[in-house]
Amino acid sequence: MPDIAGLRDELADIELQDDRALLKLKSRDFYWYSPILKKQLDGKTAELIARPRTEDEVLRILTACRARRVPVTVRGGGTGNYGQCVPLEGGVLLDMTAMAAPIAIVDGVVEVEAGAKMIDLDLWCRDQGWELKLWPSTKRTATIGGFVAGGGAGVGGISHGTMRERGNFHGARVATMQDPPRILDLEGQAANPVNRTYGTTGVLTRIKVPLTPAQAWRDVAIVFDDFTRASRFALELTHSDGIPKKMCAVFDSQLPPFFKGLADAVPAGKALVLCAITPAGMTALKELAAEHGGRVVAEQDAVAAERDPELTPFYEYCWNHTTLQVLKKDRGVTYLQCRMPFEDTLAALEAVRIPFRDEIWMHMECVRFGGRITMSALPVVRWTSAERIYEIIAAFEKHGIGIANPHVLTIEEGSNYRRVPGDQLGFKQNVDPLGLLNPGKMRDFTPPETAAA
Amino acid sequence: MPDIAGLRDELADIELQDDRALLKLKSRDFYWYSPILKKQLDGKTAELIARPRTEDEVLRILTACRARRVPVTVRGGGTGNYGQCVPLEGGVLLDMTAMAAPIAIVDGVVEVEAGAKMIDLDLWCRDQGWELKLWPSTKRTATIGGFVAGGGAGVGGISHGTMRERGNFHGARVATMQDPPRILDLEGQAANPVNRTYGTTGVLTRIKVPLTPAQAWRDVAIVFDDFTRASRFALELTHSDGIPKKMCAVFDSQLPPFFKGLADAVPAGKALVLCAITPAGMTALKELAAEHGGRVVAEQDAVAAERDPELTPFYEYCWNHTTLQVLKKDRGVTYLQCRMPFEDTLAALEAVRIPFRDEIWMHMECVRFGGRITMSALPVVRWTSAERIYEIIAAFEKHGIGIANPHVLTIEEGSNYRRVPGDQLGFKQNVDPLGLLNPGKMRDFTPPETAAA
Repeated sequence: MPDIAGLRDELADIELQDDRALLKLKSRDFYWYSPILKKQLDGKTAELIARPRTEDEVLRILTACRARRVPVTVRGGGTGNYGQCVPLEGGVLLDMTAMAAPIAIVDGVVEVEAGAKMIDLDLWCRDQGWELKLWPSTKRTATIGGFVAGGGAGVGGISHGTMRERGNFHGARVATMQDPPRILDLEGQAANPVNRTYGTTGVLTRIKVPLTPAQAWRDVAIVFDDFTRASRFALELTHSDGIPKKMCAVFDSQLPPFFKGLADAVPAGKALVLCAITPAGMTALKELAAEHGGRVVAEQDAVAAERDPELTPFYEYCWNHTTLQVLKKDRGVTYLQCRMPFEDTLAALEAVRIPFRDEIWMHMECVRFGGRITMSALPVVRWTSAERIYEIIAAFEKHGIGIANPHVLTIEEGSNYRRVPGDQLGFKQNVDPLGLLNPGKMRDFTPPETAAA
Repeated sequence: MPDIAGLRDELADIELQDDRALLKLKSRDFYWYSPILKKQLDGKTAELIARPRTEDEVLRILTACRARRVPVTVRGGGTGNYGQCVPLEGGVLLDMTAMAAPIAIVDGVVEVEAGAKMIDLDLWCRDQGWELKLWPSTKRTATIGGFVAGGGAGVGGISHGTMRERGNFHGARVATMQDPPRILDLEGQAANPVNRTYGTTGVLTRIKVPLTPAQAWRDVAIVFDDFTRASRFALELTHSDGIPKKMCAVFDSQLPPFFKGLADAVPAGKALVLCAITPAGMTALKELAAEHGGRVVAEQDAVAAERDPELTPFYEYCWNHTTLQVLKKDRGVTYLQCRMPFEDTLAALEAVRIPFRDEIWMHMECVRFGGRITMSALPVVRWTSAERIYEIIAAFEKHGIGIANPHVLTIEEGSNYRRVPGDQLGFKQNVDPLGLLNPGKMRDFTPPETAAA
């Protein structure tokens, strides 16, 4: 048994919590979208929560945990969907939300403490004329450290790709689990080993990301007679380099009724496109929509909406919020994450949408990867069984659709590529030789040193 | 004979000029890059220059010319390369450079008088936090009206495409040659018939173009051991959505010696890449360059350089300035304008570069068209004969390379598509029924009304 009592004594001047309800709450994320993960992860909890205020406190916590061979699992806003912050082997839950200060913007790159909420960070940058390139649909609760470590794709992907795209992640300060723990200052490609590794390769204490000049985004909702027309419009919009955009999502007609605040504006049976466009692009957008038979049914100032707790920015219907909007009313669904082929995107889409239409409600996000345009599909799937999910995945893959499986725990299995990119494994062996950082999440890792205390 | 004397009397309170040397000078552009066009156009001159200060004066000039059946050819900065502003049938040269006032920026769209110099317009926008999406390498002398009417491609094309890309040209006010001449206010797709029609479809008096937030561009020069590596790097950079860029050009080793101000920095025999990148993208850029064996040899603040008459912003080595830099020292060359295929771009490039290497010095510009990335080639070509140019064009076309022939006079022949896009012909029949606007430039046009006075 790990010496939690000893830890508590040694770290008495740091904010610690071990209330059972709080431990349970903070040991969870949104993995329950997946009935498969729910079964595996329900009941897993940390034994102690530590909430450091400074890098020094982080180092002291890591030192104390290392000495006692106590696992450490890092948590930001807890908005992940794959159990990224669920401690599989108990130990300490490192809550980073007290380290949330923005440091500075230099040459268009912001440096910020890892526990900053993305909405706060973005609005702080916006006051200085900049905005984040990328954010998740959970921007109002997610932290920047959690986004880098646990996600890295979302709103903005239509123009900037993902956090893995060269240039989108500038660097980080990382606390290691070495003997003794130390701080690494990583920049450029050298920072890749801490990008989307669920905190298995060090504790992110500060993040640097390049920004993009702030724009006054307009949320626009457009309805179409059918999903095919809506998708064709969305892809053409995405290819229209003259129309600056932050987002473009397509929803089959089953989904808009679940979107509180928008449902009334979308006639029954219509497919829906939600996009975020600059004011200067609105004329061209509306012309393009009309050419495709689309009709604008709602429009709002996206930034004003996200600042107002009463309002819903349209991105909160998009990305993985789509699934959440449905789950609020119907707990019998789950979802998939798919990358459509670059060529003949719509043909592949229709090939899976039509046969599965009673079971799968299609939802697409237009994105760029490596300078090329395609769509990510995040369809809502009626849950029956794990076997059925894997049948559906196989059917999708047959049509050249890549799957980033959201029903698995490890970094490798959740990746499109089924492996850890770059030299993340080698890096982890160096910075976490005992394998104490979020153990069980990097499948291919075996600790080089024995963990016996 | 047109009644020029009568015109002069009627328009006496408008700025008119008929000095022979000035008429000759103002009737020319940079068509002389093409020995073929030089032979056809040398000696063509207007009979009178009119320089209006207001839209009312434009209308009065057009009314007077229409009544006397006098052709009107519009001129901006005279930086075209295809004789766009050369009056084939004499008449009035309408010099728009006195109408140069910026009007306003509303929701990121600037409205400006058509004769504004692009550098002045861009710096005026920049003071308000915006910049032009696109400009020609002749930004320091070209006008916005001339760019819309006569070019529309250039710096910025790597991110925004061309002026023909939906959303890049917002609208225009246009004076027609109807009876009586009138002003049309065109927006969105309705403005397409005046986009790149050399002033044959009306006189642009005001332009509206969407802007993009101003960035502090860095000019960067990178050398590579050979052209193949340089091109591979350039294409990968162009596909790197995480690195914001305004320009990326590749030059084979024969060209940098002609670039005054850069020649000393580029070792003999090296291929050169010139790009403009945001400060936030520099770390990623330099890492990518190093991975491809590139070495940064020069760097400067691009905006400071263009503001200083003593300095050369790197874009003045790019686009059609490349040819000009060579012509300054060697009048025995000309050039081509080619669009490389989207797929296997580098294979097509090498297939024409290597066999022609003694005769053609390769120069590429990375660009986007319709959301997809490729390269435009503007190679410098050793001049021998028109027949040889057409042999070369045929050889390029055999490899799937599209040619926008810069050795022809008409809009249709100069287009990649060999035709006028949209309903420009129908529009012209309506707004210029007598065919008095820049006659001879729209090949497929026949005046619906008899021109007899």
